[in-house]
Amino acid sequence: MPTVILFGPTACNNETRLRSLLKNAWQIIALPDDTRLEPLHRALPQADALISLMWQPEMAVAEIRLRLIQALGAGVDAYDTKALPDGCALCNVYEHEAPIAEYVLGAMVALTARFVFHDRQLRQGRWDGTGRRDGAPHAELAGKTVGLIGYGGIGREVAKRAQAFDMKVHALRAHPHSSSNGTAPDWVGGAAQLPELLRASDFLVVCCSLNTETRGLLDRTQLARLKPSAYLINVARAEIIDEQALFEMLKEHRVAGAALDVWYRYPATIEQMLLPAEWPFHQLDNVLMTPHLSAWTDAMIERRWQKIAANLDALAAGAELHNVVAHGAERRV
Amino acid sequence: MPTVILFGPTACNNETRLRSLLKNAWQIIALPDDTRLEPLHRALPQADALISLMWQPEMAVAEIRLRLIQALGAGVDAYDTKALPDGCALCNVYEHEAPIAEYVLGAMVALTARFVFHDRQLRQGRWDGTGRRDGAPHAELAGKTVGLIGYGGIGREVAKRAQAFDMKVHALRAHPHSSSNGTAPDWVGGAAQLPELLRASDFLVVCCSLNTETRGLLDRTQLARLKPSAYLINVARAEIIDEQALFEMLKEHRVAGAALDVWYRYPATIEQMLLPAEWPFHQLDNVLMTPHLSAWTDAMIERRWQKIAANLDALAAGAELHNVVAHGAERRV
Repeated sequence: MPTVILFGPTACNNETRLRSLLKNAWQIIALPDDTRLEPLHRALPQADALISLMWQPEMAVAEIRLRLIQALGAGVDAYDTKALPDGCALCNVYEHEAPIAEYVLGAMVALTARFVFHDRQLRQGRWDGTGRRDGAPHAELAGKTVGLIGYGGIGREVAKRAQAFDMKVHALRAHPHSSSNGTAPDWVGGAAQLPELLRASDFLVVCCSLNTETRGLLDRTQLARLKPSAYLINVARAEIIDEQALFEMLKEHRVAGAALDVWYRYPATIEQMLLPAEWPFHQLDNVLMTPHLSAWTDAMIERRWQKIAANLDALAAGAELHNVVAHGAERRV
Repeated sequence: MPTVILFGPTACNNETRLRSLLKNAWQIIALPDDTRLEPLHRALPQADALISLMWQPEMAVAEIRLRLIQALGAGVDAYDTKALPDGCALCNVYEHEAPIAEYVLGAMVALTARFVFHDRQLRQGRWDGTGRRDGAPHAELAGKTVGLIGYGGIGREVAKRAQAFDMKVHALRAHPHSSSNGTAPDWVGGAAQLPELLRASDFLVVCCSLNTETRGLLDRTQLARLKPSAYLINVARAEIIDEQALFEMLKEHRVAGAALDVWYRYPATIEQMLLPAEWPFHQLDNVLMTPHLSAWTDAMIERRWQKIAANLDALAAGAELHNVVAHGAERRV
């Protein structure tokens, strides 16, 4: 019977769900505390698969026959692909495109109509912004331009919804000429056209992966190309945008506002209290701050575990794995 | 030269805009204070048109030659159509469908992903609901059912966007068999099918006009048919939903939450502090409270004044008026 290790609380909390989804018999070893490596080191020599939020060199042992490291999400920046065991595949999992696109459109409305501010005001009997007494109006989405940095699965789902909102869609992709089977943007450019995209965007959506090309991509020089009326939405990784430059742009209202769902630092556990950045974004009232939740829906989690179970079943059956991101050297599955 | 009275601050604040849009020469009389009737009574005998947020019997004078009362919005519940001067038309104006539909979809995301709550928590370093540390997930919109009470201009724009979100659309309309040139809902019913609509809805959107059939339509009995997981969004008029019943349902979590943009009471001026209901909705954390702003965008206001100016020009030219809602007896324009 093959063996899979669930490493960390996120994997372990879904042990029952995984069992109910698996078609093949698997031995499951649950190690909820991913800050302790000794239990992992003891279990690894017997394991065929590992489900974990990360893979780092110090996690490995000499005796290892691991053939699958299954990521719990799409982003694999926490997995050191150079340190993969020989013959071991790293697979990721998607299914987050729809809820992230929902978040992006919802955040556009929440930013322009200032939901957080107006909710707080009206609870005190203050009617700023009401149409009934000629308050200050807000910006309409229809007719505006969404600039997408990244046009993968998330970008295409944002585009589909934005077009139903009668918005124009401009998209930047690493390979601008590759074909797309999704919604057609009004404009598509490559990395060199970033300045054009920034100048055209009323809503800039960061939805690319974090890698050596995108880390720090939006620095002070690039951000300065945004219109003062533009809003920025980051659902990718915080490190794509220079933290200090973003904070200063927002504080000085050189952009209108931002919805930030991804952050510069994360707590070790959900109970730990930790501000999400070094710079005091929490003092800015033109920022919508959410704790990396955009993809985190009940339906998305169920879809992901269906895919993860299917990958374990494929491994048990000697069938092809899905969503292989990288391979350890030599033996390939 | 024909004469138009701008009555109240909302109309008067747009005098310059109106002048720039009018093609014909009009004398404009601006009366910003709509709590004082004497200036209105003095001006009315010379006026051909009145732009006002209301029309009530006490506003009229004996000597009157008014041919157009132009509403500033779509809802005409503040205009007493039985008290219209003879031969005077009451016209309304729309253009609010797109921004209200944007609000509705944005509110669905803000309610399910709890934007107000999570923004407040994260500003204190609290990470409830994060996907990064296996927080509690939220509900996804895709696959859910939107129930529309009212399938006019707003309902159709909500439907178009909801379908791009991969939601199912159920619609209730006064005349279920009349043809629609818009998006086709997955289900259409008439007033008698309200219980069915309520039971099917994951998101109930109230977007019908307030009239004798809809006042108090959603009473305790009807609201009890909603699922406990359902959310309610009211962008029409507060009086369609029984205030006490709604408050109690929300407080007791017999529905999941509500986004309320329309209210049971309004301040006389934007400066006046006034809680928007007799019942303390402001104490509930499953309510998104906004001050009647959903339609109130810069683009919507510009479109409305274009239509209002076009109606004044039509009156000056003896042409047909647009969006006639009611007519005073005898002489018709």
